[in-house]
Amino acid sequence: MSGVWGNKIQISIFGESHGNAIGINISGLPSGVLLDMEAINEKMERRAPGRSKISTARSEADKVEILSGVFEGRTTGAPLCGIIRNSDTRSQDYSKLKDLMRPGHSDYPAKIKYQGFNDYRGGGHFSGRITAPLVFAGAIAEQILREKGIYIGAHVKSINNIEDDSFNPLEITKEQLNSLKGSDLSVLNNEQGEKMRELILQAKKEGDSLGGVVECAIAGIPAGVGDPFFDSVESTLAHLVFSVPAVKGIEFGAGFDITKMKGSEANDSYYYDGDEIKTKTNNNGGILGGISNGMPIIFRAAVKPTSSIIKVQDTIDVNKKQEDKLQVVGRHDPCIVSRAVVVIEAVSALGILDLMLR
Amino acid sequence: MSGVWGNKIQISIFGESHGNAIGINISGLPSGVLLDMEAINEKMERRAPGRSKISTARSEADKVEILSGVFEGRTTGAPLCGIIRNSDTRSQDYSKLKDLMRPGHSDYPAKIKYQGFNDYRGGGHFSGRITAPLVFAGAIAEQILREKGIYIGAHVKSINNIEDDSFNPLEITKEQLNSLKGSDLSVLNNEQGEKMRELILQAKKEGDSLGGVVECAIAGIPAGVGDPFFDSVESTLAHLVFSVPAVKGIEFGAGFDITKMKGSEANDSYYYDGDEIKTKTNNNGGILGGISNGMPIIFRAAVKPTSSIIKVQDTIDVNKKQEDKLQVVGRHDPCIVSRAVVVIEAVSALGILDLMLR
Amino acid sequence: MSGVWGNKIQISIFGESHGNAIGINISGLPSGVLLDMEAINEKMERRAPGRSKISTARSEADKVEILSGVFEGRTTGAPLCGIIRNSDTRSQDYSKLKDLMRPGHSDYPAKIKYQGFNDYRGGGHFSGRITAPLVFAGAIAEQILREKGIYIGAHVKSINNIEDDSFNPLEITKEQLNSLKGSDLSVLNNEQGEKMRELILQAKKEGDSLGGVVECAIAGIPAGVGDPFFDSVESTLAHLVFSVPAVKGIEFGAGFDITKMKGSEANDSYYYDGDEIKTKTNNNGGILGGISNGMPIIFRAAVKPTSSIIKVQDTIDVNKKQEDKLQVVGRHDPCIVSRAVVVIEAVSALGILDLMLR
Amino acid sequence: MSGVWGNKIQISIFGESHGNAIGINISGLPSGVLLDMEAINEKMERRAPGRSKISTARSEADKVEILSGVFEGRTTGAPLCGIIRNSDTRSQDYSKLKDLMRPGHSDYPAKIKYQGFNDYRGGGHFSGRITAPLVFAGAIAEQILREKGIYIGAHVKSINNIEDDSFNPLEITKEQLNSLKGSDLSVLNNEQGEKMRELILQAKKEGDSLGGVVECAIAGIPAGVGDPFFDSVESTLAHLVFSVPAVKGIEFGAGFDITKMKGSEANDSYYYDGDEIKTKTNNNGGILGGISNGMPIIFRAAVKPTSSIIKVQDTIDVNKKQEDKLQVVGRHDPCIVSRAVVVIEAVSALGILDLMLR
Repeated sequence: MSGVWGNKIQISIFGESHGNAIGINISGLPSGVLLDMEAINEKMERRAPGRSKISTARSEADKVEILSGVFEGRTTGAPLCGIIRNSDTRSQDYSKLKDLMRPGHSDYPAKIKYQGFNDYRGGGHFSGRITAPLVFAGAIAEQILREKGIYIGAHVKSINNIEDDSFNPLEITKEQLNSLKGSDLSVLNNEQGEKMRELILQAKKEGDSLGGVVECAIAGIPAGVGDPFFDSVESTLAHLVFSVPAVKGIEFGAGFDITKMKGSEANDSYYYDGDEIKTKTNNNGGILGGISNGMPIIFRAAVKPTSSIIKVQDTIDVNKKQEDKLQVVGRHDPCIVSRAVVVIEAVSALGILDLMLR
Repeated sequence: MSGVWGNKIQISIFGESHGNAIGINISGLPSGVLLDMEAINEKMERRAPGRSKISTARSEADKVEILSGVFEGRTTGAPLCGIIRNSDTRSQDYSKLKDLMRPGHSDYPAKIKYQGFNDYRGGGHFSGRITAPLVFAGAIAEQILREKGIYIGAHVKSINNIEDDSFNPLEITKEQLNSLKGSDLSVLNNEQGEKMRELILQAKKEGDSLGGVVECAIAGIPAGVGDPFFDSVESTLAHLVFSVPAVKGIEFGAGFDITKMKGSEANDSYYYDGDEIKTKTNNNGGILGGISNGMPIIFRAAVKPTSSIIKVQDTIDVNKKQEDKLQVVGRHDPCIVSRAVVVIEAVSALGILDLMLR
Repeated sequence: MSGVWGNKIQISIFGESHGNAIGINISGLPSGVLLDMEAINEKMERRAPGRSKISTARSEADKVEILSGVFEGRTTGAPLCGIIRNSDTRSQDYSKLKDLMRPGHSDYPAKIKYQGFNDYRGGGHFSGRITAPLVFAGAIAEQILREKGIYIGAHVKSINNIEDDSFNPLEITKEQLNSLKGSDLSVLNNEQGEKMRELILQAKKEGDSLGGVVECAIAGIPAGVGDPFFDSVESTLAHLVFSVPAVKGIEFGAGFDITKMKGSEANDSYYYDGDEIKTKTNNNGGILGGISNGMPIIFRAAVKPTSSIIKVQDTIDVNKKQEDKLQVVGRHDPCIVSRAVVVIEAVSALGILDLMLR
Repeated sequence: MSGVWGNKIQISIFGESHGNAIGINISGLPSGVLLDMEAINEKMERRAPGRSKISTARSEADKVEILSGVFEGRTTGAPLCGIIRNSDTRSQDYSKLKDLMRPGHSDYPAKIKYQGFNDYRGGGHFSGRITAPLVFAGAIAEQILREKGIYIGAHVKSINNIEDDSFNPLEITKEQLNSLKGSDLSVLNNEQGEKMRELILQAKKEGDSLGGVVECAIAGIPAGVGDPFFDSVESTLAHLVFSVPAVKGIEFGAGFDITKMKGSEANDSYYYDGDEIKTKTNNNGGILGGISNGMPIIFRAAVKPTSSIIKVQDTIDVNKKQEDKLQVVGRHDPCIVSRAVVVIEAVSALGILDLMLR
């Protein structure tokens, strides 16, 4: 399967960091959707590199050219392919990396899997850059969901040991989610956000990098979405979220903390709020038996610190078959977490849309 | 997709807790595998209910009848279907549950999704009982992997706040993994195991339940397994692990803790151990870029406390459309974690085998 | 994929001719369907062996045991698995066939593909017997379609050089389709049917076998069903129909004869029949651009003569690596076409239902 | 599924006749294949329009731009996306077709399915033009097969009632297949080819169109390819061949004629040709039980006459809801069969490669 995901919506992704273009083909979209190009471009802009001091210096316009599937501004129902040209590539930066395996990167296992033929420049198909087409596809999915009253938003829950506030899992509003989208660092608590920013700039100065946690919420989703046994909401979202480079963990609702509760605490009791069925707590993150229960869906994803750092590292040269030192040059993010926020939103939208269209 | 998972190996699961039988059809198995029925039965026995004071009192033989795909003891290459008859069902215990939604259970969202036609007795298709066929299929997958030198084992990493030791992520042996399989509570540190047991029996007495964490290791796996962009090792395993009822989180390697490290700490440096390429740390849990790097694969899954508890809970009656109290009768596990261990092993084997056969 | 087919409806088939049981697991069925067991059994009866002089002497009850997915007579929405026990097996008849490759059968390529581990008794997984579960699944699909006003029926269009009448492709009624289901030889013209019967009995006497053509119609299908580019109605039905053993050709509408028409003859002109849009001819068999156009869907499938014949044949012994003579013993159909009718109906129902549920 | 096909190789197609570009993303290709761009371009050229008097006057360079998946001339193992810009579009020709449904075309059912939002210009996604990306993908697949000693070639078996010679199903050589590739009309018998050409030009003069049959052979394929139950060679090839616009029938080996043979005639007897196992006849077209038996695979596809003709036709105006006359302007092929040859070869290569890589 590799480059293809989905059942009703099928996305097929392509591209390498320093190749001609990256892109995605989306099959199974409903016809007649009047594309909100402004919303799409805003999303692309939020992910794009070179927009802030806390991201990489590589500057890419990341304008999507739509090749198919749209006629007179609306989706035709035929596959919609969008591509993004690579422009600001400095491939010479990567010449050493053919043989020197960067720790924490895909270099070594990819070399084994693809027998040395993978495009190693800028990480090739494993570059975080390949998430740009996901954001494009996700923006379309988000628009379709928005028209059904479903809103998705994420924020930086933590950078290293600096914590943002948490979503209130019982009530998440469209306004709250929209408020997150204005800044280069989506947080609920701006004071904490400033501390994060300082920490990131400090790490940048040290030639090091930081990781963090992204918390994502899906509000307005009705009960009954999800397709167990195998395609539960959790399985579907986890599958997609782990496709985002650098993600090493995911937890829904109370997540790992639920293991410290007793059943009588963890179970979310039902009550009637007028005619509406709600739960008094939301430890299950809006999902029971793999199906949405009408409460907000909430999950957190762990994003590791950027692997590419300027600090000298121990590694091996697989050609000379000996140990060596490596100092990664090139332009890299000191912290990828803030740019991952919009990618997590995007894949969540794709996952939920696919489940809803079944 | 719902009941079907996989690409090279395709499993198709069926069954309800109180129906005639549960089972699984496995398509795509290699031909000629001499089934190790003893190993399969041992696995089934480890998951089966009624084997210990810390599990449910429901007693099921859980003997698998193989209907197809085996001739003269060996796989034929044709689909292999195994079924398990349900016998010790007490469906009358569940008569109330048609309208009273059990908190923490699939009852309410399933009722919405299936318009009230789902078999609610014992949780129906959402029962933990449906993991028995997964264990059967996983046992076959594990055997095939074992013959390639790949070993899978899991232990109870924690029950509530009692912690077992952790795997050493740099070196996990076949012997260590095998040693975990003798007890009703797989732990590395038996003293801690005894404390867990006490805590579980205490919760049982209180009519309450406990959750915990399962840690799983895959040793002997070569570099190069995994099929990104979408079918990374993480996506594949997470997809399957979240199909196991009660799982609410998964993390690979250092997992959420990696977000507190700097890049220079998180990156696993390479070195040569003789001719073999190894890493000095294993914060990435044996996976980089979604592909195995030759180090042991390690992950942890969060298992919530059993939803069915004897304690009285607040809930709603969806027929009368009013709030009500619920006391779940029936026979339930005070803690499902120990029985989940073998299920986590099983789905891991299925995931890895599918990726390896691609 | 092998044993699994489908997108919304996913069927997973299993079984060998002389194994314990054959069956099918159907995932993705809507919940709440009150199963018409009488209609299902009638279908099973029409396919079952030993019902007539023109079929094999092997006698099987072919009663389906439903293991899951049905509660209080209705589908639950969970996977529905049905199995059929094999009973009247005479495996000793097949002992010679381990090494002597039957011409026209799967024996030789299956031996290569499965490295000699395939169950060769009675053709194993390649036996026409494996179509019984397809008929079961198809009967359920047909019921669901019937409730939407869609009717499927097939007849024996020809046996060797004896031709039945053809469907009128412009008007096919529910009554006409139902009238086909009473006999062991579904034909529109009973006189021709009697000639077919005689020819079959003659071939039986000679220890030889006959082939023929099955014509199938799908009436009442609305315009707009089909999922190009790749999942056109033709691709979907052809995929399934070629899964039926012994089928070697399929054609839609005028089929191969359309190649002898000019465009001005082949094009089906539109007109208004009241408010309804119809075509004056139906050379395209109700399908344009891979999508139904509201006219009856019509196709014909070529069924080869039964490979198993009593007449002595030249073949090879792959063990001794030498040429040999073979006289197939065992009980076989002198002509499989009449029993294939109901199988073709079944797979058509599955294909159309899957497309409609997308 | 719609725009995505395949299991090991997954192709995802996109494009509309008058949109920005058409293309295909190919996932799952082996890494390290040194692309034979000359062979690819030759294939593209054979399909391209405007190359001959017997094809459409629309002239397109049909140069593929490879966006990804190739580095230093070799496949990287990452998805390979190729696009072809549309240039010679005359969209104004199609303005009338928004409401006037062309008989024999997808116009009407597509309008229903996509609720009027489909791009009707030039047939949109239903245009024969969308086969260009298939030819590109197929050319790569063919190259990979060629390196395994497998050759694919097709010829025009008939145009209307003019018949070419047939392949000898017992022996098809690489040289014979290569010899077919030089002309704008691939035939075995050039005299018959000239008669076909005259008939086509005659139809062109009359403003009418012709259909025909394409015969395709796959030589050098080993025994054991195919993945029953559902993914037999026949199902796989038929699925793909029916995706090619205008195909209305397919038959393997003796096809529909096998229904007129007795079992004793139809069965292909085995013999040893030295160490090699062969059959004395090849009525089954190299496929038994859905698996290749080592003999050449042979099939024929029925291609209907081009639907777009200059002659006046009866049709309806779905906007005015009344009957009307239609004269299709625009540039069209008087006969698509000769250009379909290379498309049939292409999809056959894709089907066989996918089955071989499993």
